[in-house]
Amino acid sequence: MTSSYDPGRRSLLAAGASALAAAGLGGMTDARAQAAPAATQARPLPPYVSWKNPNNLIVHTATTIETRRSAFGTSVITPADRLYIRNNLPAPDVSIVADRDAWTLAVEGVRGPRTLSVAELKSLGLETLATVLQCSGNGRGYFADKPSGTKWQVGAAGCVIWSGVAVRTVVAALGGLASGGRFMTGTGGEKLPDGLDPKSVMVERSVPLTAMEDALLAWEMNGEPLPHAHGGPLRLVVPGYSGVNNIKYIKQLAFTAAETDAAIQKTGYRISPPGQKGDPSHPAVWEMDVKSWINAPAPEAGSSVRAGWVQIHGVAMGGTQAVRRVDVSVDGGQTWQQARLVGPDLGRFAWRQFVLPVKLAPGNYLLASRAQDVKFNWQAESTPENAGGYLNSGWRVHALPVTVT
Amino acid sequence: MTSSYDPGRRSLLAAGASALAAAGLGGMTDARAQAAPAATQARPLPPYVSWKNPNNLIVHTATTIETRRSAFGTSVITPADRLYIRNNLPAPDVSIVADRDAWTLAVEGVRGPRTLSVAELKSLGLETLATVLQCSGNGRGYFADKPSGTKWQVGAAGCVIWSGVAVRTVVAALGGLASGGRFMTGTGGEKLPDGLDPKSVMVERSVPLTAMEDALLAWEMNGEPLPHAHGGPLRLVVPGYSGVNNIKYIKQLAFTAAETDAAIQKTGYRISPPGQKGDPSHPAVWEMDVKSWINAPAPEAGSSVRAGWVQIHGVAMGGTQAVRRVDVSVDGGQTWQQARLVGPDLGRFAWRQFVLPVKLAPGNYLLASRAQDVKFNWQAESTPENAGGYLNSGWRVHALPVTVT
Repeated sequence: MTSSYDPGRRSLLAAGASALAAAGLGGMTDARAQAAPAATQARPLPPYVSWKNPNNLIVHTATTIETRRSAFGTSVITPADRLYIRNNLPAPDVSIVADRDAWTLAVEGVRGPRTLSVAELKSLGLETLATVLQCSGNGRGYFADKPSGTKWQVGAAGCVIWSGVAVRTVVAALGGLASGGRFMTGTGGEKLPDGLDPKSVMVERSVPLTAMEDALLAWEMNGEPLPHAHGGPLRLVVPGYSGVNNIKYIKQLAFTAAETDAAIQKTGYRISPPGQKGDPSHPAVWEMDVKSWINAPAPEAGSSVRAGWVQIHGVAMGGTQAVRRVDVSVDGGQTWQQARLVGPDLGRFAWRQFVLPVKLAPGNYLLASRAQDVKFNWQAESTPENAGGYLNSGWRVHALPVTVT
Repeated sequence: MTSSYDPGRRSLLAAGASALAAAGLGGMTDARAQAAPAATQARPLPPYVSWKNPNNLIVHTATTIETRRSAFGTSVITPADRLYIRNNLPAPDVSIVADRDAWTLAVEGVRGPRTLSVAELKSLGLETLATVLQCSGNGRGYFADKPSGTKWQVGAAGCVIWSGVAVRTVVAALGGLASGGRFMTGTGGEKLPDGLDPKSVMVERSVPLTAMEDALLAWEMNGEPLPHAHGGPLRLVVPGYSGVNNIKYIKQLAFTAAETDAAIQKTGYRISPPGQKGDPSHPAVWEMDVKSWINAPAPEAGSSVRAGWVQIHGVAMGGTQAVRRVDVSVDGGQTWQQARLVGPDLGRFAWRQFVLPVKLAPGNYLLASRAQDVKFNWQAESTPENAGGYLNSGWRVHALPVTVT
């Protein structure tokens, strides 16, 4: 079951698979995904994302859908209809976006705790921010020991522009933080299945309080009301933090003394040694690493690249820092050339495009890229294996073999 | 006939309306548009743009479709499905995007003139650039003397991100400019109707050679292959210049000693005194002016704004210069407050968002904005009337009346 890849979910499913099925959650898993991985690429889009363009996507399961490497384009942003999907629970009923302004958010851990409607949030402030949204498991498919879970390649990521209100503005409007808050804890508004311990299934994540400074409560993405499939009417955006920390359908935002004890935080999404179950003593999957990959030339199966000048291009992200530099290799990392950063700079949480023109003679090449952030941290050559297969950002496994004819 | 608003087209239509109809161009005009303007808002989208979202658009005619003021959002960019449409001729058959890389462009006026395929152009270079794309007639509906032509309000404009190759890179690859070039002249690939002088109908525009420095031959918009309705497979993007100069389906790019004598340049798109026919002695519609407008609060007909804190926001463009500052007034320009520029800065040819939080008591307000570019040029209070109703950027007529209850 490819959607049950994190330790928390696995134990849940072992304990209550039949309860899940009874609650109608069977649709989020798909036995065929494991039985016949090659066939996943031809699978149709599930109805809730039927507005996306299937030609640009790899449908792993109904809740795990990836952007094709060749579909990223070169215009910095990722359009909504090409953006990946990874849901930990089925989305709430689409009726929640019928009146977006009526959606409410409870804010706790402030001096004046209150429930605010989206309409009220909109009156408080407006910020617009571009971020890389990247699934914690993006790149899992490149880990050598094949951790369980969706075998994402590069496409569980995108760069999008959000509009909303800054969390710090909302906190200030409610009198500031109450004392003792060390974490910002967001809770999703998904309907939980009956008969299971809510803590075992709910989407509730805590991030360090420092993440509040840049966080947004967003109601818009790429110039359109935030699509339901991406968390509309309201999503917590935590710039620089991996996808799971960016809570969809956010219903509660709390400033808490401790991390939530929901399974998705306590045992799930931990950088655990291979073979070990997730544990609170293991690092949480929070900030993203410096990472880059090449998107083109990325020949589809069966075709090859024509000899001559080729514009090698890709994207580079710095996690929580801006990208300073990207180097590109055509020989799998034996030699490197500095690429040019191209296109508008959407800020330190966005990715940058890079391009390197290279004249390629017929032959076989291994195209690699490695990014450096403004603090001079280089993208790692490889990311240590971990039980959940999280945050794979090693440049070597992301290299792209091409045949030039 | 609302699509026949420029002097060149008017004389053409007077001369050959029946020939146009015989050529199947009747569909681009619509007598009902003038007979019942109020009904235009309910008109369905024509098939070639059926993928757009009709709720966000005002369909004037099949070739003149405007973004609603309330649909601009606050994420800087305008998604393709909300972007305006204004075609001077019906688009070529959609089959031209079946093999985008096979589309060819003839380049003339260089030392080594050649025809290049899009595949070849892609091997030459890659640039990504955000620009305001704005119809020359945007704002025409706000001119007091009601010049003939589509009564655009603010929505014949958008801010989009293009990817393509820099024109200067292509010129360099072809040996540089031949001597004597003073203009960059682009020719669209539309099929011309039989039985008419091609010069009277073709879309061919010349801009000063200096515009070449920033110009792009674009194959991508907002991260997706350039939609056919917006000029795909290949469009000339002339940053800072009004829409008509950004040639769709570009088939020829020539560096010429003189402006083209096509009607659309010679007599059309000229800033002519009211009542006068366009003439080459009148200024061509080229560079755009400093301009801004408020998008919200923009109550739809029948509703009003609730009293309290309101985030007044809108967009500001500098034409060929970056925006430095935007002021906002709630009393129709009697008093002004400086707004905050918000969101990523996509470069000098893009627009900037601005926001001003204001506490509004019940009453009537007239919301206005005026922008200043980095050369300290303020947006004009009003634009002089001109025969074609072009380039209306006066802040006073763009002011937005709102009732707060």
